[in-house]
Amino acid sequence: MPIERIAILGTGLIGASVGLALRSHGFAGEIAGWDPDPEELAIAVERGAVHFGSSDGMAAALSSDATVLCGPVFTILEWMDRLAPVLKAGQLVTDVGSVKGALAEHAQGRYNLKDSAGFLPGHPMAGKEVSGAVNAEPELFDGAAWLFTETTDSRGMHTASRAIADEWREWIEKLRCRVLDLEPQRHDVLCAWVSHLPQFVSTALSALLEDEFAEKDEMLAIGGRALREMTRLGASPYSMWRDVAHTNTDAIAASLLALEERLAHLRENLKTPELREEFNRANQFREGLRKQKP
Amino acid sequence: MPIERIAILGTGLIGASVGLALRSHGFAGEIAGWDPDPEELAIAVERGAVHFGSSDGMAAALSSDATVLCGPVFTILEWMDRLAPVLKAGQLVTDVGSVKGALAEHAQGRYNLKDSAGFLPGHPMAGKEVSGAVNAEPELFDGAAWLFTETTDSRGMHTASRAIADEWREWIEKLRCRVLDLEPQRHDVLCAWVSHLPQFVSTALSALLEDEFAEKDEMLAIGGRALREMTRLGASPYSMWRDVAHTNTDAIAASLLALEERLAHLRENLKTPELREEFNRANQFREGLRKQKP
Repeated sequence: MPIERIAILGTGLIGASVGLALRSHGFAGEIAGWDPDPEELAIAVERGAVHFGSSDGMAAALSSDATVLCGPVFTILEWMDRLAPVLKAGQLVTDVGSVKGALAEHAQGRYNLKDSAGFLPGHPMAGKEVSGAVNAEPELFDGAAWLFTETTDSRGMHTASRAIADEWREWIEKLRCRVLDLEPQRHDVLCAWVSHLPQFVSTALSALLEDEFAEKDEMLAIGGRALREMTRLGASPYSMWRDVAHTNTDAIAASLLALEERLAHLRENLKTPELREEFNRANQFREGLRKQKP
Repeated sequence: MPIERIAILGTGLIGASVGLALRSHGFAGEIAGWDPDPEELAIAVERGAVHFGSSDGMAAALSSDATVLCGPVFTILEWMDRLAPVLKAGQLVTDVGSVKGALAEHAQGRYNLKDSAGFLPGHPMAGKEVSGAVNAEPELFDGAAWLFTETTDSRGMHTASRAIADEWREWIEKLRCRVLDLEPQRHDVLCAWVSHLPQFVSTALSALLEDEFAEKDEMLAIGGRALREMTRLGASPYSMWRDVAHTNTDAIAASLLALEERLAHLRENLKTPELREEFNRANQFREGLRKQKP
């Protein structure tokens, strides 16, 4: 098989989970890890997510068939910049970033050229509100969608890189992911609705409750499952979501505005029969989601 | 012990769970059940949530020491009307309704008088998005808050009713609930924030997604845990929430408006440092909730 060595750059929650998942599903090659935080890297090594940690991410990528960029979107963009001039045809860079339009643009002229490495943009729809290798799990991606947003450019990458890309896609299927292909712009709009909007709503609700109650004991003591669940994502780290907000701004702003209007509509109809219609539509949505369940 | 017989009027999710919980925690008396839906009642009987089903809720209440009103708020108010003239001092009516101000008003002049039954308003902060006795669980209330909203009136109920009320409160503690006392108005404001607002947000988000995507397969296939979780309550039944919306309108409208404004604020700051502040506040809220965890 073409992939003998993989470099994971960024061994936090997702990166370390990728390593654990590959190994638990039978990847027999070598996995090198790098992380800006030496402690994070040490945990990934200790947990067996990577075979060894490297203090030089560039060197780890240079000697690998596939390099997986894991981290906030801007960090991925920076690594794309740094790696493009040094990697060669027959090597592959892939990623797990939450936004794909910006990456597709950034790959243009840097990757998927005659002599350059290939770039295969990917995005697993899995995560947690807590970060770090300590929270990584080999089963994190089990049953989740793993989106690929190939472009005309990436489809034309060097055949030697393509072989790596095809094998990477096979590995993702072996991790029991549902592999889906989307256009980058479509990806960003869909993810604004199903991933970014839920995150920002949970953040806004949590921040609002934090400010609303100067004395919180009573409120916190009363809260049940609904409160815990609807604010769980409020624990998500700014570091990751800042980059999402900066690179998918328009689609997120549009979905937020639509929800603001929907909440206002519901608020104005608390005592009218339209409330029943809103509950019916919501019930219908959940029915669709239930049938979809993997 | 004063409570030998309990009537549960409304043997759906909460009523049947109350019966199952009482029995699994050692209640040795008899539990009669009634439900407007004979099928629902049959399931409750079959599951052992009640000892027997009665086709006459009034008769079941008349021959019980304590009657537990379970159902939507307006149904509880109706039963309060019907039972007040026929029950006597020494008997107790309690409930599990989600709104308490309207009930406190309704109890005035009907309960807690010299010769009348006592009324003890209660509210377990537990539930599910699915309804019905089939989804009932003896452990549903385990670790949950069970709120009581006694008033000057209820504190002055007949001593024979008080003995029943005190024993009922002891039973709630035996179900491993965290018992909390609140003023009815304070209860309704707090619940608007921690329970009703999360419900209406989830409904609005689900309804919005239902309308936004004419072709849903792609969107549903992509959605991960965040989407499933933030829309779970979208499956909640209108029948119950209509009554909450009608009886706690002002507090719910105020919390919805505050969230609309918060979302707009976040939307306007997707690319400014204020986004970091919102994430910090949200993280702080979750930290407080984490420490509170029972």
